[in-house]
Amino acid sequence: MPGSHCTKDIQRNISCSTSHPLTQKTHTTTFTLQEFQPLMANPVQQSEHEKSQGEKTDARTPAGPTNLQKTRACLLKGLSYFSGDMPVFGKWMEKQFLLLQLLDWVLRGAAQVMFVNNPLSGLIIFGGLILQNYWWALNGFVGTLFATISALILQQNRGAIAAGLYGYNGILVGLLMAVFSNAGDWYWWLLLPNIFMSMMCPIVSSALASINSRWDLPVFTLPFNILVCLHMVATGHYNHHFPQVLIQPRSELPNITWADIDVAKLFRSVPVGIGQVYGCDNPWTGGIFIIALFISSPITCIHAVLGSAVGMVSGLALAAPFESIYFGLWGYNCVLACIAIGGMFYALTWQVHLLAITCAFFCAYLGSAIANVMSTFGLPACTWPFCLSALTFLLITAETKKIFKLPLAKVTYPEKNLGFFWKLKKQEKMEKREKERKEKEEQQKAIEENLRLNEKEQLRLELERMEEGKTASDESKEQNEDTHTEDPGSEVGQQGTEEEDTNNNLIEVTVTDSV
Amino acid sequence: MPGSHCTKDIQRNISCSTSHPLTQKTHTTTFTLQEFQPLMANPVQQSEHEKSQGEKTDARTPAGPTNLQKTRACLLKGLSYFSGDMPVFGKWMEKQFLLLQLLDWVLRGAAQVMFVNNPLSGLIIFGGLILQNYWWALNGFVGTLFATISALILQQNRGAIAAGLYGYNGILVGLLMAVFSNAGDWYWWLLLPNIFMSMMCPIVSSALASINSRWDLPVFTLPFNILVCLHMVATGHYNHHFPQVLIQPRSELPNITWADIDVAKLFRSVPVGIGQVYGCDNPWTGGIFIIALFISSPITCIHAVLGSAVGMVSGLALAAPFESIYFGLWGYNCVLACIAIGGMFYALTWQVHLLAITCAFFCAYLGSAIANVMSTFGLPACTWPFCLSALTFLLITAETKKIFKLPLAKVTYPEKNLGFFWKLKKQEKMEKREKERKEKEEQQKAIEENLRLNEKEQLRLELERMEEGKTASDESKEQNEDTHTEDPGSEVGQQGTEEEDTNNNLIEVTVTDSV
Amino acid sequence: MPGSHCTKDIQRNISCSTSHPLTQKTHTTTFTLQEFQPLMANPVQQSEHEKSQGEKTDARTPAGPTNLQKTRACLLKGLSYFSGDMPVFGKWMEKQFLLLQLLDWVLRGAAQVMFVNNPLSGLIIFGGLILQNYWWALNGFVGTLFATISALILQQNRGAIAAGLYGYNGILVGLLMAVFSNAGDWYWWLLLPNIFMSMMCPIVSSALASINSRWDLPVFTLPFNILVCLHMVATGHYNHHFPQVLIQPRSELPNITWADIDVAKLFRSVPVGIGQVYGCDNPWTGGIFIIALFISSPITCIHAVLGSAVGMVSGLALAAPFESIYFGLWGYNCVLACIAIGGMFYALTWQVHLLAITCAFFCAYLGSAIANVMSTFGLPACTWPFCLSALTFLLITAETKKIFKLPLAKVTYPEKNLGFFWKLKKQEKMEKREKERKEKEEQQKAIEENLRLNEKEQLRLELERMEEGKTASDESKEQNEDTHTEDPGSEVGQQGTEEEDTNNNLIEVTVTDSV
Repeated sequence: MPGSHCTKDIQRNISCSTSHPLTQKTHTTTFTLQEFQPLMANPVQQSEHEKSQGEKTDARTPAGPTNLQKTRACLLKGLSYFSGDMPVFGKWMEKQFLLLQLLDWVLRGAAQVMFVNNPLSGLIIFGGLILQNYWWALNGFVGTLFATISALILQQNRGAIAAGLYGYNGILVGLLMAVFSNAGDWYWWLLLPNIFMSMMCPIVSSALASINSRWDLPVFTLPFNILVCLHMVATGHYNHHFPQVLIQPRSELPNITWADIDVAKLFRSVPVGIGQVYGCDNPWTGGIFIIALFISSPITCIHAVLGSAVGMVSGLALAAPFESIYFGLWGYNCVLACIAIGGMFYALTWQVHLLAITCAFFCAYLGSAIANVMSTFGLPACTWPFCLSALTFLLITAETKKIFKLPLAKVTYPEKNLGFFWKLKKQEKMEKREKERKEKEEQQKAIEENLRLNEKEQLRLELERMEEGKTASDESKEQNEDTHTEDPGSEVGQQGTEEEDTNNNLIEVTVTDSV
Repeated sequence: MPGSHCTKDIQRNISCSTSHPLTQKTHTTTFTLQEFQPLMANPVQQSEHEKSQGEKTDARTPAGPTNLQKTRACLLKGLSYFSGDMPVFGKWMEKQFLLLQLLDWVLRGAAQVMFVNNPLSGLIIFGGLILQNYWWALNGFVGTLFATISALILQQNRGAIAAGLYGYNGILVGLLMAVFSNAGDWYWWLLLPNIFMSMMCPIVSSALASINSRWDLPVFTLPFNILVCLHMVATGHYNHHFPQVLIQPRSELPNITWADIDVAKLFRSVPVGIGQVYGCDNPWTGGIFIIALFISSPITCIHAVLGSAVGMVSGLALAAPFESIYFGLWGYNCVLACIAIGGMFYALTWQVHLLAITCAFFCAYLGSAIANVMSTFGLPACTWPFCLSALTFLLITAETKKIFKLPLAKVTYPEKNLGFFWKLKKQEKMEKREKERKEKEEQQKAIEENLRLNEKEQLRLELERMEEGKTASDESKEQNEDTHTEDPGSEVGQQGTEEEDTNNNLIEVTVTDSV
Repeated sequence: MPGSHCTKDIQRNISCSTSHPLTQKTHTTTFTLQEFQPLMANPVQQSEHEKSQGEKTDARTPAGPTNLQKTRACLLKGLSYFSGDMPVFGKWMEKQFLLLQLLDWVLRGAAQVMFVNNPLSGLIIFGGLILQNYWWALNGFVGTLFATISALILQQNRGAIAAGLYGYNGILVGLLMAVFSNAGDWYWWLLLPNIFMSMMCPIVSSALASINSRWDLPVFTLPFNILVCLHMVATGHYNHHFPQVLIQPRSELPNITWADIDVAKLFRSVPVGIGQVYGCDNPWTGGIFIIALFISSPITCIHAVLGSAVGMVSGLALAAPFESIYFGLWGYNCVLACIAIGGMFYALTWQVHLLAITCAFFCAYLGSAIANVMSTFGLPACTWPFCLSALTFLLITAETKKIFKLPLAKVTYPEKNLGFFWKLKKQEKMEKREKERKEKEEQQKAIEENLRLNEKEQLRLELERMEEGKTASDESKEQNEDTHTEDPGSEVGQQGTEEEDTNNNLIEVTVTDSV
């Protein structure tokens, strides 16, 4: 049955030609699913010399390990247990009792304010908070706990809860409601609105995520900003139950004499600025936070310090009162903005590093503006400046590959993000090379084919000539000659066109299918 | 022509395999297009015992009708004429004179403020407004009329106009511009900005709908909020032509002594809160509005009362001055938010009911916050708190089926929404069962097939044995034996593989087509 | 090989049926890519009699040119060199030195504030600015320059940069920061924040474009509004480095006596309003701007004057202090809104013209509202009212073809937009006619086919009758007769069904492919 055989072939061809994209897809999925090994080399050196190191590690792997390398590998493995996002600990936790898991989520939530998904950092941060103020730390803990519980009740994504993504707004809500309360410490009634507002966090987060996901943007601390401002402006300074501290707009020229500047306090404002992310003005607390960041991700740590310094400089440039600069109010937004842009949501390159510093300056400007606007309503600036400036800088589209925004689902921590970015680049290069190689091979083949055809042609011509010689000797077979000599050529021609025809048909089918 | 026959079969197979999803689609469309019978049972009992009743009704249908059931059916049919969205009246109206239709649309528009698409409710509501203030009622009527006319001029969707969806912002704009005017009643010049702003309603509605439709959200009363705030802040208190009432931010501690609380006034604040949706402080007007709601949808009515009560409690919790609570200012936003979440845009389940109450509390909090912010600009809170809280709660995404957001095009009134939700659930169950049944059948078939094959195999073995017996008696035909006994088996095998082959091919075609 | 032939046919049919949409697509692309000839006829007459003229020009083309027409064509060609968006000059510029190109971009950027993409207009506008104030003009130039440079650094779209779309926010930022500075002219430190804010323009533009592009909306002057408000509120009136002028909310009834009105000043407020788009209060500067608009696009010019007049009337209606009306503060937003709606982003029809005037009134109202709100924070209204009102009016969706919103990529200037709209309409008509013609032809064919079939049938019947006649004479061949006479009919029937069958199959394949 030649007919049926033919149709089967068509089917095979159809499936072959159209299954190709499928295979490719599977291939990429396989790639993106595979685990990246932690790229956390010796953290002290890495932050500065990362790029060269990363390449060195890659280059070293095929070579045999020496003693020094062995100890180094051991150290790296040891580091990977408590740096980064602690994946080994996270997996171990999955099998534990729910209450223990909840503690892990709360600790991760506490650290997620700084984009750090690490329970150890969270523990250290809680230590810093206790150093600052017991009552504030308690409120922060209650906030994180109830925000996480509320997310569980609302059946939000379990992975996001486990990463602490529903807790960080809770800790900020709890802390800042205590910080801005005018009723003094240990006013137990405050826990009521604290719990209510913390439990609203996942609702507002979920709603904002529905909007921001259209542009593949995170919600940052917007739920915290919304809810704390809501509580403060709903009650206000003149309230019997929950009075807030009095914040009023500036109405006279501040007294700034450059001779009075205190350089020591100015330098101390850098760690204070980092502490102010959690509303703490104790420089030691800020220092502890720096350590917590360093443990998880040195890149984050560097950008945090850089951001705080940029904020301080901006404050001086815009003639802010020295007290507000010393108090770290110019720093905390820039800290967060600089971390977010510098390696967290963009893959870290030199261009992105400069962008992060620009964003920190813009954020400082915006911080002053928003603080002035909010003071009209008796509100603090919260982290609105950070959210707005970071969202603006994440929405930029440029025709360059040096500014690569990571897909939101792939964001982890700067070092791992960088690894993902490098692998992607390497893969692209490989694919490009593969393509070039194939193209070359095809060209080679075409040339060889041409040569072979030429040889055949020559052979045929020789045959003709030989037969012509025959005809000269044998004149009687004249009438058959023409058809005979032309036969092989015409047959080959026919076959060729037929093959081409079927080829065309198959291509047509493929095209129409993909349409 | 076996070849051509074969290709025809392929075509049939292709069309069969790929036309399947089409058929399914058509099926669902058919389902969603079919009319749902009104689910308005005895309204008093239904609001509490709905679920059980609904099931009872379903269960009762196949049984023969008794006398009691007959009268009940009659009653239900009678109720369906003026409850719900009055579909019979609506259809009758379509054939009437345009001016009469316009009156129907205006009445429906008046009721749509409370999400009620019912001209009778609209008529009662206008009655309540006249009881409150003639001048306000006139302004409300003018607003609704011109908003509807403007929508007709702008060639907006006729169905939406007929449902009053372009009128409800108009009535609020007209009413509230009269309420907040400082020029006193019967200041006829006010009709000029009233008509202009009413005619702007469909423009702002259409623009907002373009944005909100991306998240399948309604525009609620946002156009009213925008336009009334626009008018008030554009003119302000110090204006020669259109002065507004003076609203100023709180600047001292209100005098609240719990001994002075008036419990009667506190209870009266519940209907007053419902009246304040239309800016009316007369408790009788609020009572009339409750009746208007009850006629169309008891679930809506219950949630309205519940919302108003929640607002009153929140006011007490946040230490609001008693006068503002008595005046219903804490209630009206919660009323609307509770109606919107409780059965209107979500299908009513216990989880959704609790969500609606949470939303009402959140809305009260937000109401206080927005009122304080707006007072800085001399503005009232309007229904901003309701809009923002309801939109937030409608944007939530959760991994549970108990919180089911209706597609915006399917939203009618809580009872009908519930019917839609139940039918969908029932259909899903049916499909699941059908699937399970089919799977079982297939398993059964496979088992039977196996049994048959086993039987065949045994038969074959017996045959072999018999033939072996033959060979013992007949030694001369030894050389043919092997091939003969193996023949049937190998043939079956070949056929099997061939069948499998064609099957695979067909599957491949299907896959590639669906790609 | 009939089988293989058959399969080839199928393939051909598949490709034919599915390649049809492809061909159509290519067709439309070809259409949209082709250049439209400049529709700038004699500008004085055109603005009023455009429609008729445009048609006249089309009608005249096939006729032979007279002397008058020749001079006219020459004039038109000459005009096209410096009116519209000066495409010839633009193309010539592409080959020039980068610094010269940059100057072109800066000039186009200066004119793009009024939606005019024309370097000559930009030059005239800079002349107007110098007439107003040297220092302001310098700041404007610096702003445009650095905004354009920043866009180049960020690797934004080169076409957009060349059209001045990254410069117009820069000129406004530079100008208005100088206008609202309280430090007096020639305060050189101001250039620092000026350069920083100008360089932020492309970042904010890019971010806003990412959002607005979802609704195919332009960003207008939103980046300017955001950045100037940012700078002003971040520093404020009470600042040592960059003090701003003091703006305070109105707190008492303005003194308006209608007897004091100055009609001359009122009329002068129309050009002043146009000048206020760039923050200039000199009526001569406004007059120069009108000329600059007229050169590029008379429609834009007319709408600018109309908008300014509408703003002035609105100011009187809302009882604004006369000084603010004379100062042009009621005009500039309406100017921009009226230009944007009247022919720039909608194709100009009478309905759109009315919509533009409505938008101007709405914009004036909104302007008063926003000015009052912003004054609370010590801010001017900037062009927020224009942005918000124009965006609102561009988001409208209506079920009419008279309000046609141009795709953002197709927007150039009103006259060219109109040409695009007419071509589209003409094409639609042609397609409709073509369709109707085809339908008619098919009907004709069907009728003819019927006639032919009828003739055949009659022939057959005659044959039958003849044969019946035969049978009467020849009785012996009776048994063969029935089968013989029925043969032709049955054969035709069989062929018909077979054809239908294959047709159906082909249709099935087509359907499944398009699924």
